[in-house]
Amino acid sequence: MSSTFGTLYRVSTFGESHGKAVGAIVDGCPANLQLTEEDIQSQLTRRRPGQSDMTTPRDEADRVTILSGCENGKTLGTPIGLMVNNRDQRPGDYQEMSQVPRPSHADFTYQHKYGNRAASGGGRSSARETIGRVAAGAIAEKWLREQFGTEIVSWVSTVGDIDAPDLSEEILSREDVDGNLIRCPDQSVANQMMDLVATTRDRQDSVGGVLTCVARGVPVGLGEPVFERLEAKLAQAMLSIPATKGFEIGSGFAGSRMFGSAHNDPFQMKKGGRLGTSTNHSGGVQGGISNGEPLVFRIAFKPPATIGQAQQTASFDGEPTVLEAKGRHDPCVVPRAVPIVETMTAMTLMDFVLCQSYRNAGR
Amino acid sequence: MSSTFGTLYRVSTFGESHGKAVGAIVDGCPANLQLTEEDIQSQLTRRRPGQSDMTTPRDEADRVTILSGCENGKTLGTPIGLMVNNRDQRPGDYQEMSQVPRPSHADFTYQHKYGNRAASGGGRSSARETIGRVAAGAIAEKWLREQFGTEIVSWVSTVGDIDAPDLSEEILSREDVDGNLIRCPDQSVANQMMDLVATTRDRQDSVGGVLTCVARGVPVGLGEPVFERLEAKLAQAMLSIPATKGFEIGSGFAGSRMFGSAHNDPFQMKKGGRLGTSTNHSGGVQGGISNGEPLVFRIAFKPPATIGQAQQTASFDGEPTVLEAKGRHDPCVVPRAVPIVETMTAMTLMDFVLCQSYRNAGR
Amino acid sequence: MSSTFGTLYRVSTFGESHGKAVGAIVDGCPANLQLTEEDIQSQLTRRRPGQSDMTTPRDEADRVTILSGCENGKTLGTPIGLMVNNRDQRPGDYQEMSQVPRPSHADFTYQHKYGNRAASGGGRSSARETIGRVAAGAIAEKWLREQFGTEIVSWVSTVGDIDAPDLSEEILSREDVDGNLIRCPDQSVANQMMDLVATTRDRQDSVGGVLTCVARGVPVGLGEPVFERLEAKLAQAMLSIPATKGFEIGSGFAGSRMFGSAHNDPFQMKKGGRLGTSTNHSGGVQGGISNGEPLVFRIAFKPPATIGQAQQTASFDGEPTVLEAKGRHDPCVVPRAVPIVETMTAMTLMDFVLCQSYRNAGR
Amino acid sequence: MSSTFGTLYRVSTFGESHGKAVGAIVDGCPANLQLTEEDIQSQLTRRRPGQSDMTTPRDEADRVTILSGCENGKTLGTPIGLMVNNRDQRPGDYQEMSQVPRPSHADFTYQHKYGNRAASGGGRSSARETIGRVAAGAIAEKWLREQFGTEIVSWVSTVGDIDAPDLSEEILSREDVDGNLIRCPDQSVANQMMDLVATTRDRQDSVGGVLTCVARGVPVGLGEPVFERLEAKLAQAMLSIPATKGFEIGSGFAGSRMFGSAHNDPFQMKKGGRLGTSTNHSGGVQGGISNGEPLVFRIAFKPPATIGQAQQTASFDGEPTVLEAKGRHDPCVVPRAVPIVETMTAMTLMDFVLCQSYRNAGR
Repeated sequence: MSSTFGTLYRVSTFGESHGKAVGAIVDGCPANLQLTEEDIQSQLTRRRPGQSDMTTPRDEADRVTILSGCENGKTLGTPIGLMVNNRDQRPGDYQEMSQVPRPSHADFTYQHKYGNRAASGGGRSSARETIGRVAAGAIAEKWLREQFGTEIVSWVSTVGDIDAPDLSEEILSREDVDGNLIRCPDQSVANQMMDLVATTRDRQDSVGGVLTCVARGVPVGLGEPVFERLEAKLAQAMLSIPATKGFEIGSGFAGSRMFGSAHNDPFQMKKGGRLGTSTNHSGGVQGGISNGEPLVFRIAFKPPATIGQAQQTASFDGEPTVLEAKGRHDPCVVPRAVPIVETMTAMTLMDFVLCQSYRNAGR
Repeated sequence: MSSTFGTLYRVSTFGESHGKAVGAIVDGCPANLQLTEEDIQSQLTRRRPGQSDMTTPRDEADRVTILSGCENGKTLGTPIGLMVNNRDQRPGDYQEMSQVPRPSHADFTYQHKYGNRAASGGGRSSARETIGRVAAGAIAEKWLREQFGTEIVSWVSTVGDIDAPDLSEEILSREDVDGNLIRCPDQSVANQMMDLVATTRDRQDSVGGVLTCVARGVPVGLGEPVFERLEAKLAQAMLSIPATKGFEIGSGFAGSRMFGSAHNDPFQMKKGGRLGTSTNHSGGVQGGISNGEPLVFRIAFKPPATIGQAQQTASFDGEPTVLEAKGRHDPCVVPRAVPIVETMTAMTLMDFVLCQSYRNAGR
Repeated sequence: MSSTFGTLYRVSTFGESHGKAVGAIVDGCPANLQLTEEDIQSQLTRRRPGQSDMTTPRDEADRVTILSGCENGKTLGTPIGLMVNNRDQRPGDYQEMSQVPRPSHADFTYQHKYGNRAASGGGRSSARETIGRVAAGAIAEKWLREQFGTEIVSWVSTVGDIDAPDLSEEILSREDVDGNLIRCPDQSVANQMMDLVATTRDRQDSVGGVLTCVARGVPVGLGEPVFERLEAKLAQAMLSIPATKGFEIGSGFAGSRMFGSAHNDPFQMKKGGRLGTSTNHSGGVQGGISNGEPLVFRIAFKPPATIGQAQQTASFDGEPTVLEAKGRHDPCVVPRAVPIVETMTAMTLMDFVLCQSYRNAGR
Repeated sequence: MSSTFGTLYRVSTFGESHGKAVGAIVDGCPANLQLTEEDIQSQLTRRRPGQSDMTTPRDEADRVTILSGCENGKTLGTPIGLMVNNRDQRPGDYQEMSQVPRPSHADFTYQHKYGNRAASGGGRSSARETIGRVAAGAIAEKWLREQFGTEIVSWVSTVGDIDAPDLSEEILSREDVDGNLIRCPDQSVANQMMDLVATTRDRQDSVGGVLTCVARGVPVGLGEPVFERLEAKLAQAMLSIPATKGFEIGSGFAGSRMFGSAHNDPFQMKKGGRLGTSTNHSGGVQGGISNGEPLVFRIAFKPPATIGQAQQTASFDGEPTVLEAKGRHDPCVVPRAVPIVETMTAMTLMDFVLCQSYRNAGR
């Protein structure tokens, strides 16, 4: 287990899907940040299942409690303990699976690695684990916004084979994104996506998708070459989210098909006397360091592994068997992944800000 | 700067493109591994520029010296100091660029972050930095091969818009890969790729590409959920390589377009009484942990930023200017990236092996 | 704040003295360890204030709850969330101090570093912070005992100028130590110590002391030269305990007065065919690595800073003032430090065990 | 092996006593620090053996080369590679010892931990390992001096049973310390110490000692509670130096014998309108954080293990044997430890400065 992320803004999470509680410790948050539970709750609520038709109706209030690190509404500079109780424990729904590792789940690998695993739900590989990170990252978002005006907005850009147009150059708000249940700011594409999710659910199947994330107002200079280049840590952060299969920044995989003469981002003087680039194939990073242009990246999510359809597979001891998931499950997780992507981005950026303050002795 | 990678197999690199030397310290390599400079040299030689027409003809012998950590041909368990002298220092070729940040290079971001930068070449963002990692990862490759029979093979699967067929299920050797200069094991596709590189060089342009990497013989159980899932650390490792823009594992971005019923990897008993999966959309990981199937992942490289063509851009103080790179430069770096990808994979895997030994107290 | 300790057995603590809760996350505990809250509670209870006349009568039950990481009485290999509610919150007792930094307390330095501090009690510098560590270390103790038979016993060897005889070569149990309230196994010395504490309390003063700690059954080979030598990490662990001022191992400061011919520990064959040393001036470590002899070290604790006597000091803005602590406070903390020292020792040792498993590739 | 120290000022060392070279990588040094090899050389030269009668006459020039990280006499912000060649390789002097682990040396523990060890000299446990740290710490000293006027001065305060008077309140310079070969600023005590060392050498014995170190001009606020309290990291840093057995700060072990009413450091307004303390039993730290008073700490060194006298001991397989060290060895290492202690202090402090810059969001 390696449940800690970050060097100076250090987030450690805990909690299984069906234990007593999940949560996190945030170590390294500067003192004197105004902070209440409400500041954290909004992203937790966006992450929550049961918001709509789109997602699993497990009813969990997911109310966060700040256990430490704040007094009189301000951070103390000490570790912030964050806890969300688990209330909806229905292990019965899952019990049948225990002799058969669920295909494309973590049952097999956890059992092999640990010789034990949570008997019900996904244990640490469950989406519920992400509560701790979202809470911890929500604090980072607030700090970045107050210090630098940083705005991080993610949305669903693909579901199955339905693609939204490229919206990365438009300045979108979270309200734009939350305008529909699928969290795609293009309403007509969103309708198609929601239709696809509905028919997928009716077939007791699941479907994958892609999120785009844009961060504006990122200070120039973030990222620590060589091994902690900004894009490298963002890639780690994103691929640490359950169900992710890919990450690309700026031109990404499409950029690998381009020629340098078209791909290079020329410099030009921009509004406010800032030297910037006229295109942004780089996606906001050059040499592993933020260059002041918006960070633009995309994350691929596989279709959820839990499906109601019968699946031919084998038990732990190799016996062929047919598996049918009971319970109700998300046919498409990408809308709920939006706050997870945003908060993981925030904690990555904040850690780099804290780490880089003295890079230039001449200042 | 964060030039250290790994928790127990810890690699720290140093060196600018045109300083006295580049190299690395490997801390944490187990004792009693048979190790000579020749074991390391082969991957360094594969990484070397000037191997062919395909790449920049800077002649650097890149001979590695082991400074410490070995005695009588065996590792001592102490830090292994590795050094390669820089011999081909021709700063004159680069000098003209200093008032103008090169588009899509690190000049602008390094200057902003550090208030200083190497006056010539790419400094730490240069490909020459990768020598230390390749040397360090070559040791990890040897150890993994001897302990587990792990074989890591990468090749060029795309150059520009020329794609090789999917070869990830074939068991390829490094000899297969090195059969041609572009390092694509499909010779007829390789010929097309080499033609494209040649015409690109003639136009004084550059072109991107994609590498595929497959690791076989990876022990089950590697990867440390949550934040150091195997795919997350591989993504970090790969995106830490200069010029990378994307990473995907298993089904990757294409998998996000699939339905769960098609994407799930069912279990079945395999040869040798091993429970495995009949498909490998997961790419060898489930829940962030290796499952015994081959690791399969792909890395996108942008076209090199240095091109001979004139580029319209601006100087540091915003003056419009035209830039033309002097010197000779790689029009396509992906063949040389093959050993970098392999060795970064090896050091990532080896670190996980060392970290996980006691995960299960019941053993 | 840096509230995380350890590389693979990673303990992160949280909690102020008067917030909602204190606790810890233990990340990296191997799976399948039998573990209940009772296993942890015994050391927490030994640490608890209000056990006797000797210590502050604040009544805190300090019952630990395991929030995650266990199922059916066994660890899962996932992070173990540990929480103890704060129940005795009487900020009124402390309020008056707020304009005056208490001498030899952390008020001044916290205020300067963070620009904020817990308005009451000692915040993170309070002894209450140690609850999280004790809980986390109690798990390490259990694991070490089961894996290697390691026994760690600490006791009070000095209070003020009353010294117990050297008991480090006797095999003492925790029952021996707990035989009296001052936790000195020599009953007649203990009586003198307790008399001194009583007269000190009557004078509204406080007094310091020294703890000795011996760990037997420590595997040979623990410790990671150079910077994480076993004695170096033990020193860090011990000096991270509030109120500590010194650490020495084996011969310690007295050893610096000796000649090499007397100080060297000659080897001899011991019972069971084990090569050992006939003396133990080294205190169980050579070259930073455990040698199989008992670890023997001592920790100096200053007298508690909070005293009832009037003290002439100055306020934050430099005004001379007289300070008299209200509330009831420990005149001597060393008996309560016993479980803290033991559990910090355990987590240090366990981390080294997990880190060193592959040191020798030839095994 | 764990040969890396620090979080943001990260020092990784390499090198055996009789390999090709020793050295270090310094990662995280801010850019634009004026730096030449001469800045580093002075402390290396003070550390060098063969300076006098007092110490071993092995003639090693110990000239440092900067391999990377500097250009035009300024740091680039990139890793600084530092190397010192090993020139005096006379393994013959040591060969005879190989079947017999030398008492109180690391032969036994290295052999057990690694199943291998450097056949000659002390390998990584040799004093020669400290070259890398001294070089790395010399850079930190320069940076701290330029940024904050920090001055770190250490001296020999005890040799055997000869104690210098307490000089910690006097402002001593390195010139004062270097005024005699034993590096004790009190000349009459120094003469006694040198006599003791001479008679000890004549007896082919060795003797231990104590160093005192004082750091003035340390910014308020350094240290990261809980586990990286300033005194805890200093303790780790000091106990990572070969041959150390103890560490104490401020009142130290003597403070444990005091009453709180005498030990507490009252506040008072000091020159320059700074709130300070009228006494300094705390040794410059409160609650794990520097308080602006001088840091004062002491380190105990055991007598060197290598002595010319015949010693009765046993071979690896338990055979009783008599061991007589050949070659020439330091009878007293403490004078040479002075620059090691100073530079380890500097790198510890610098790391804390880099880590704490954003602790207070309200600034």
